[in-house]
Amino acid sequence: MSAFRSIEWLEEGVVRMIDQRRLPHETVYNDYTNYQTVAQAITDMVIRGAPAIGAAAAYGLALTTHHTAADGPYALQAELAQADAVLRKSRPTAVNLFWALDRMASLINRPDWVSIGDMQTAILAEAHAIAQEDVEINKAIGRNALQLIPDEATIIHHCNTGSLATVDYGTALGIIRMAHESGKQIMALLDETRPRLQGGRLSAYELKAQGVPFKVIVDSASGYYLRKGEVDLCVVGADRVVANGDTANKIGTYNLAVVAQANGVPFYVAAPTTTIDMALENGDEIDIEERSAQEVTHVGNWQITPDEVEVANPAFDVTPAEYITAIITEKGIVYPPFKENLAKIMSD
Amino acid sequence: MSAFRSIEWLEEGVVRMIDQRRLPHETVYNDYTNYQTVAQAITDMVIRGAPAIGAAAAYGLALTTHHTAADGPYALQAELAQADAVLRKSRPTAVNLFWALDRMASLINRPDWVSIGDMQTAILAEAHAIAQEDVEINKAIGRNALQLIPDEATIIHHCNTGSLATVDYGTALGIIRMAHESGKQIMALLDETRPRLQGGRLSAYELKAQGVPFKVIVDSASGYYLRKGEVDLCVVGADRVVANGDTANKIGTYNLAVVAQANGVPFYVAAPTTTIDMALENGDEIDIEERSAQEVTHVGNWQITPDEVEVANPAFDVTPAEYITAIITEKGIVYPPFKENLAKIMSD
Repeated sequence: MSAFRSIEWLEEGVVRMIDQRRLPHETVYNDYTNYQTVAQAITDMVIRGAPAIGAAAAYGLALTTHHTAADGPYALQAELAQADAVLRKSRPTAVNLFWALDRMASLINRPDWVSIGDMQTAILAEAHAIAQEDVEINKAIGRNALQLIPDEATIIHHCNTGSLATVDYGTALGIIRMAHESGKQIMALLDETRPRLQGGRLSAYELKAQGVPFKVIVDSASGYYLRKGEVDLCVVGADRVVANGDTANKIGTYNLAVVAQANGVPFYVAAPTTTIDMALENGDEIDIEERSAQEVTHVGNWQITPDEVEVANPAFDVTPAEYITAIITEKGIVYPPFKENLAKIMSD
Repeated sequence: MSAFRSIEWLEEGVVRMIDQRRLPHETVYNDYTNYQTVAQAITDMVIRGAPAIGAAAAYGLALTTHHTAADGPYALQAELAQADAVLRKSRPTAVNLFWALDRMASLINRPDWVSIGDMQTAILAEAHAIAQEDVEINKAIGRNALQLIPDEATIIHHCNTGSLATVDYGTALGIIRMAHESGKQIMALLDETRPRLQGGRLSAYELKAQGVPFKVIVDSASGYYLRKGEVDLCVVGADRVVANGDTANKIGTYNLAVVAQANGVPFYVAAPTTTIDMALENGDEIDIEERSAQEVTHVGNWQITPDEVEVANPAFDVTPAEYITAIITEKGIVYPPFKENLAKIMSD
């Protein structure tokens, strides 16, 4: 597998994930053979990033199918419904999880299955298709974005949206990678992205390996560089884009977008169409996950705060569409008005 | 001494500081007997916060005077000039350092000193006066701010501006403390303030001891709460306010101010008039300190990033006056237009 592929299927019926909690210092692969542990891995952020958890959920169902003791298609469908319900609760905000489970369910729930063996073959093939399509989609996003990137560009990036956040390649970080590979002179300013430091740990790890020039900054330093006029654009990923263009993404995205706009710097969201949720009208309807206090009170084994302090730790925020210059998808670049233009691209 | 007094003079000619790098987990006092180690303590952030480093510099000169081997006032003046030059280089951004050294110099450079003993008495008295006046000034800032604080208020605070950042009591955090002590229902949202985590470590430590309700948040979560309409005001300190109202303060202050304004939430700067530098026209003239990469790559002994990555680490940013609702000083609240109104209050 590529050094950064977030998830892989081994033919003996094992899902292997690189443990992203331990990067960049330790490269550890964890093996999973049932949906329960896959769901826990999503919750615990062994694997994270909207596209990656979509693929992980699909493979969770494939594991269930592979190892089933069911005596016929109907029993297996029931078992998979249970797996679906557990996987669906693993994280609330990224829509790709639900998209992937819905796509798998529409296959699983076909009324005409003849044998367990047919189901095993088809369900694994569908999980593979979701994973492989994601890689192709990421590269298309990167290609579509090239026209937006000056030949010399300083780009602020938030969180991690690279190979590790997807199946492979990446969305927003994939754009930076492709711009670099295409010969543009890129300097990435990587928000470290507290509390879990996906930028300082994971994006730095990926760009270092890829030879893309970058500097790590604390999240609140973005404005310093924006105000100095040293930044050409910002690009981030998305956990969910809704019908009006409002975008849920890693906490801090909203602050960055507001400060970018105050300085006249374009702010782009990179999102596969699997991240676009036309069922919600606006961003306030998105369920925002609140995670544990420990993420804020500790970094690694180092305790920051005094003992027993209260913490508020929303994992995502919503950036209203008015702060977004364009949404870069695999089908093309979507500009405002987003309501009309997202509807158009989603119905193509 | 009070649990939080940042700096104290012991009569045997020792300056004692609580080592703020080790809080909240260890309460360690360091003793200093010469200006060189005091200057290093300022550089290393054993003591930090604009008012506190002003007092530390004054006591650095008092130490020099106390322990001098000079044979007369002229020789001591020369020795103190050397101390002044070293202390002046300890940190570049906060103007209180220069203000305190200037105030001490105008005493030291009097032409009519008769004896070393007279100088020792007068210079120590002046350092004590700077320290004691700071405490009184802080309390006056707190009292002046009370009219701006609703009876029930959620307040975002950035960095640490409490007792530890001053001689005692605090500026912006002193306002929160006084509002709480006056019976208002206060909830403080404390930005943890990467990279050095003065909010998560020091402000949390102080408010916990004082019984003021608070929650620690990552810096980039401020916008989440501002946009939800849950925040009544933001209040921060300042390292330097210049003639037009532009304010240098801890990195991240600018982002917070921009996002507060985008949400119609008042943004206040609490600053003693010793922090106001009428010699500079606008904030772009302020020297912004760049600190070591290690502050970003590590938290405590925990390494975040891969080895050998580039980092950019500006310690401060400049918030343009247009984002500041008012500046709260010990002489009163200064509203826009700041150029006129700061000039007026500074000439009173």
